[in-house]
Amino acid sequence: MLNISVIGNGNVGSKLARSIDNLKDFKLLDWYGRNWINNKIPEKGIDKIKDLKKSDLYILAVSDNSIDKFFDFIPKDSLIVHCSGATSINIFKDYSRSGVLFPLQTISKLNNKLFTKTTFCIEAKNKKDLNLLKKLTLSLGGYNECLNSKQRANLHLSAVWVNNFVNHIIYKGKRICDDNNISFSILKPIIKTTINQILNNDPKEIQTGPARRGDIKTLEKHKELIKDLNDKVLYDTITKSIQNSYE
Amino acid sequence: MLNISVIGNGNVGSKLARSIDNLKDFKLLDWYGRNWINNKIPEKGIDKIKDLKKSDLYILAVSDNSIDKFFDFIPKDSLIVHCSGATSINIFKDYSRSGVLFPLQTISKLNNKLFTKTTFCIEAKNKKDLNLLKKLTLSLGGYNECLNSKQRANLHLSAVWVNNFVNHIIYKGKRICDDNNISFSILKPIIKTTINQILNNDPKEIQTGPARRGDIKTLEKHKELIKDLNDKVLYDTITKSIQNSYE
Repeated sequence: MLNISVIGNGNVGSKLARSIDNLKDFKLLDWYGRNWINNKIPEKGIDKIKDLKKSDLYILAVSDNSIDKFFDFIPKDSLIVHCSGATSINIFKDYSRSGVLFPLQTISKLNNKLFTKTTFCIEAKNKKDLNLLKKLTLSLGGYNECLNSKQRANLHLSAVWVNNFVNHIIYKGKRICDDNNISFSILKPIIKTTINQILNNDPKEIQTGPARRGDIKTLEKHKELIKDLNDKVLYDTITKSIQNSYE
Repeated sequence: MLNISVIGNGNVGSKLARSIDNLKDFKLLDWYGRNWINNKIPEKGIDKIKDLKKSDLYILAVSDNSIDKFFDFIPKDSLIVHCSGATSINIFKDYSRSGVLFPLQTISKLNNKLFTKTTFCIEAKNKKDLNLLKKLTLSLGGYNECLNSKQRANLHLSAVWVNNFVNHIIYKGKRICDDNNISFSILKPIIKTTINQILNNDPKEIQTGPARRGDIKTLEKHKELIKDLNDKVLYDTITKSIQNSYE
């Protein structure tokens, strides 16, 4: 039985603490949060970091900027990991046993499921600790991929494109419908087909549209339809990027 | 029984001609194509536009720039429609009976299905012809939405965002994985979740990520990771667009 303490009670921290509490080979020792809703501290929860007990593994599920603020409270001979996609393992200068446990998921208030089938990108300074992280992710019902810090940072960047940017682009498409009294639901089958085609083919090969065809007349018509100056710039920049990709 | 002639043997023209040939209340009279693969002209196919017989309905499934090049060969008292999203009904100046039959679908060489469940955006100068187009789309197994030319042009523009642009953005995300020896398949569950969340919520409400949070540190890290100058511009432009949307 291995003792785990979770630092942080945001989305990832809460899901980790709740999941670990139900595992066979791992035990939740402490769960730190600075504030708790209505001051209701759950079982094993603490709100004073100095109350943190000596644990086998500390999981820092806090914002990137706060990770190093907890080092004073965590013994240097314990295993310590953070959950950040963008932060290198090298932040743990004084910890010989350290690593990363980055759950790859769309973090959103809508997402209440636990970590079943979630892929964790894991990394550790030594093999024994890496194996421990592998075991933990499997116990959580997830998968794992061993990536180094540079790969993980790039995966995180890629996730920004395929999640954040795609969401924004579709929002812009929806705005055009809203502004012209067109039901956005007409486009939903297209969106589904688009994604199915992308997931099953090379997106570069299946690119279509006026930018890809070099259909100047349609591109000009579209720019006339777009009234907002920022949206014109966005349309232009993506169009040029498509054209550059096939030169 | 109504005679229909299809002009064009590209993706849309071919699917229309093949579908109409099987209908109960409509009959394919002529199917014009400038060139046929291996010079094999199908039944009812013609390759000389002057061979076009007098028909009840002419469907122009040709490129936007070619639509008006066929007017000399089509009697002014027949019903004539085009299949373009971006072209106004007003192109038919000399036709009192005219309209539009725009199938909303991802036009792609991968898409071999006929028009079952496809939504057609329809428009006509008079109600009787609009009803005829409604009947035709239903016979084809599709749905229809009555949109005017301005709405249809905007819907076409919106489809460029949700299809062409989304495809390109995901291609850029995939490139980051390819360049860093990361399997793109790790991101596929995120892409699926992203789209499910968009289809079932307001995309503006569920936007997440460093741009939305104003997480300058991560934005700076990402810009360091992106080496290609055009990709830096694209990242920057989309990031600013997200920030502008929540000011």
